[in-house]
Amino acid sequence: MPGNGELTVKEGETITITNQVSVRPYLQTLIWVHFPERCLVKGSRCSIVAVTAMDDDEWDDEWDDTRSSACYAEVDLEAAEEGATNRTEVQGPTRKITLNKFPGFSKSGPELYLLAKMLPKGKEKISVYMGEVGPVWLYPEVQMECLVADPKKGSKMYGLKSYIEYQVTPSTTNRPVNHRYKHFDWLYERLLEKYGSAIPIPSLPDKQVTGRFDEDFIKLRMERLQSWMSRMCRHPIVSNSEVLQLFLNHQDEKDWKLGKRKAEKDETVGVMIFSQIEAEAPELGLDEVERKCESFSRFTKAMDDKVKDLLAVGHDHWKRCTGPLPKQYQKIAKAFQNLSTVFSSSGYQGESTLTDALTATGKTYEEIATIISEQPKKDLHFLVETNLEYKGILGCFPETITVHKAAIDKLKDADKLVATNKISPHDKPVMAKRVSNMSYALQAEMNHFHSNRIHDYNRVMQFYLEEQVKLYETIAGKLRAALQQYTTL
Amino acid sequence: MPGNGELTVKEGETITITNQVSVRPYLQTLIWVHFPERCLVKGSRCSIVAVTAMDDDEWDDEWDDTRSSACYAEVDLEAAEEGATNRTEVQGPTRKITLNKFPGFSKSGPELYLLAKMLPKGKEKISVYMGEVGPVWLYPEVQMECLVADPKKGSKMYGLKSYIEYQVTPSTTNRPVNHRYKHFDWLYERLLEKYGSAIPIPSLPDKQVTGRFDEDFIKLRMERLQSWMSRMCRHPIVSNSEVLQLFLNHQDEKDWKLGKRKAEKDETVGVMIFSQIEAEAPELGLDEVERKCESFSRFTKAMDDKVKDLLAVGHDHWKRCTGPLPKQYQKIAKAFQNLSTVFSSSGYQGESTLTDALTATGKTYEEIATIISEQPKKDLHFLVETNLEYKGILGCFPETITVHKAAIDKLKDADKLVATNKISPHDKPVMAKRVSNMSYALQAEMNHFHSNRIHDYNRVMQFYLEEQVKLYETIAGKLRAALQQYTTL
Repeated sequence: MPGNGELTVKEGETITITNQVSVRPYLQTLIWVHFPERCLVKGSRCSIVAVTAMDDDEWDDEWDDTRSSACYAEVDLEAAEEGATNRTEVQGPTRKITLNKFPGFSKSGPELYLLAKMLPKGKEKISVYMGEVGPVWLYPEVQMECLVADPKKGSKMYGLKSYIEYQVTPSTTNRPVNHRYKHFDWLYERLLEKYGSAIPIPSLPDKQVTGRFDEDFIKLRMERLQSWMSRMCRHPIVSNSEVLQLFLNHQDEKDWKLGKRKAEKDETVGVMIFSQIEAEAPELGLDEVERKCESFSRFTKAMDDKVKDLLAVGHDHWKRCTGPLPKQYQKIAKAFQNLSTVFSSSGYQGESTLTDALTATGKTYEEIATIISEQPKKDLHFLVETNLEYKGILGCFPETITVHKAAIDKLKDADKLVATNKISPHDKPVMAKRVSNMSYALQAEMNHFHSNRIHDYNRVMQFYLEEQVKLYETIAGKLRAALQQYTTL
Repeated sequence: MPGNGELTVKEGETITITNQVSVRPYLQTLIWVHFPERCLVKGSRCSIVAVTAMDDDEWDDEWDDTRSSACYAEVDLEAAEEGATNRTEVQGPTRKITLNKFPGFSKSGPELYLLAKMLPKGKEKISVYMGEVGPVWLYPEVQMECLVADPKKGSKMYGLKSYIEYQVTPSTTNRPVNHRYKHFDWLYERLLEKYGSAIPIPSLPDKQVTGRFDEDFIKLRMERLQSWMSRMCRHPIVSNSEVLQLFLNHQDEKDWKLGKRKAEKDETVGVMIFSQIEAEAPELGLDEVERKCESFSRFTKAMDDKVKDLLAVGHDHWKRCTGPLPKQYQKIAKAFQNLSTVFSSSGYQGESTLTDALTATGKTYEEIATIISEQPKKDLHFLVETNLEYKGILGCFPETITVHKAAIDKLKDADKLVATNKISPHDKPVMAKRVSNMSYALQAEMNHFHSNRIHDYNRVMQFYLEEQVKLYETIAGKLRAALQQYTTL
């Protein structure tokens, strides 16, 4: 894109400009936007002043600096349509950019792969096997894990710029590397570029401009980075990727920078990932491919709805458990304590057993109020986090499925394309073979998704119920102790 | 009261006219009101057309008949001030009538006793002894109990008039007698007339015009009549009274009618009850009498406040437990069940353990919703009922204490009254002795109240906590069973 580009913002439309642009596969340039001071523009025109490839160092310097007047731009139209969505809570598919105004970009564009004369001969091969549940990825014998821990405040430029650095330790080497949020974000971008057409790469926890050094924020971000890294490490293809290995295993700063440059020049990105896939199975017919695709589409949409419902219920329940419910128990506590105070003023002999017991009951209800209000952090939090993660993953499927549907449509049009000399008759069987290949990849990914989903929900539900059992048992125990203070009749 | 009386109702003031007038001691006539159709008048003038003494039979016929255009009137000013208080839930001191517009009625009037030349020589004597806790009534060796049970619909006038009859069985004879609500009400009026100046006689459960044959209403009314009867039977003076014995032990209709006429002619009513009291203790000085009276006044007022607070909290908690809370649990249930439904549509193998477990979890939360919404009836109900009873009793104290304060004031004025020849010099020591007697009665009653209060609150708190423990244990148990449905990790 030579010179300046323009995005027109309609009156009343909100466009969020954050620190980094989210580029889709094939757009191998980063958009450098000069932007005065504020990052939120309403009902105005914003000009993209220059597009340039940048130097690593520059990139390194600016990312965490909110005072910079130049910033990477993420044009988040979807979030804008949703209105005032709470961004810290919405993990997921908000990182979208409508780039079809840029020449050469086709939104899904499976043609590039379907009609490529020469497929790149990459070193990496992605195998799909027939497992018990159908097509599956090749899983490593030992699953890599990695620990994100020990957030530390760092600074540079003589303390002018501060950031938080996390220690990331992969189970393969047990050697920790340090990474800032922007490094995770860089990794995310690379993974999205490379695998996004075939594998849902969920968004990172949202960026935040203010309160970045707040303890609770750091803790939650670290927890979410941990979940994200675990999910990436658990994925047989992603965990095996050069870029993730670089992120976890680079030896030093030079190694890291060289690796970064190499990764950014990777050409097997977008739909071209399918060229690496090798399915050891007979070619699938178009009908079967279409049926599978439809069924995955239906399932992921339906699950997305229900996950959102559960999140809404969880959010409501959280509010109730931390608001009106403990307040109610505090009122009950106060009522018993006040009664105790009045009774103890009676001047009647033999009053103390009852007043002591009533006071203890009041204290017990105060404790119950506290227990109830602190419970969501202990259990509901993980149920909500898991569902937020799934909301994020499910938000990636529509695009994956769109790529597949476009490939299917292309194959359906093959005869017409041959007739109008758009493609050669020889291209059609090649396309059919490649669409079948894409379907194997989708099926393998869906089976991976299902297996993870069953594992994750099984785990989180057990955890939630265990904590809920403990909660009610604790309350029962406290009330039993209060009960024992009364005179036995 | 010859001719017609008038009550002026201010604009915006609500006056509730129900089936029966509540008369205070000394007003030995019932007010017969002709009233056109409706019993609720707003911002209007209502005339009392005629006052007449009635025949037993007439009284018997009309009481339960809501279709009668003539009715007994209860002018419930306090309830009117409170606005739209739910009358079925408010037991207690609402049965007040401002009767000082009627000639001859003095609200407290202890002079009648303090200055009586000749005290009636009744057969009944009420003894006050010095016990461990101070002055106490003489308690019978065996405490009478009575059972109110088996409500049955009866009718007369060839089915034109229907009523509910309860079986009342005293533990002394174990022989049941049948009584309608109006008989309880008659008993209440007699007890109030006779003992109201010295002993709090709590109101009966409120009368109700519509829904009198509703099963839940009958059950609740019976329960409240039971509590009221138990309290009367537990009182050493009231339980020993001729009128209560008549109510419980009359042999037949004739016996009952004769007894009723006799009771209505009893002249030892109002403050004259103090003439029956005999305290085996030295005469109390005015200071001590005043101090005791002040202290009882403070205590009963303070307890009244706290009991009302507890009732308000209980009412709120009831609403929450039967409204938003179970709704919340139903939503949680639905969210889990919906997730299970989506999961089971995945077509993935090995799904059923998780979906079955999720469905079971959903069902468990549905059950929890039901348990929570039904819990208040099981425990909070009794806590509320006990406090409503105490609200009723405490509502009687201000009047008792007013009588005492008036007596104290009269004694303080004695010298002035002697100087102005209102009383003879000989009257003063008699008054002092009688005021001391009144104080012994008040102290005995307060000690009776305290002892009952400790017993009742000890009992109801234990019951409440036991049920609460059971509730939380039940919920924990149900959740544990749901948890066991998941695959152990």
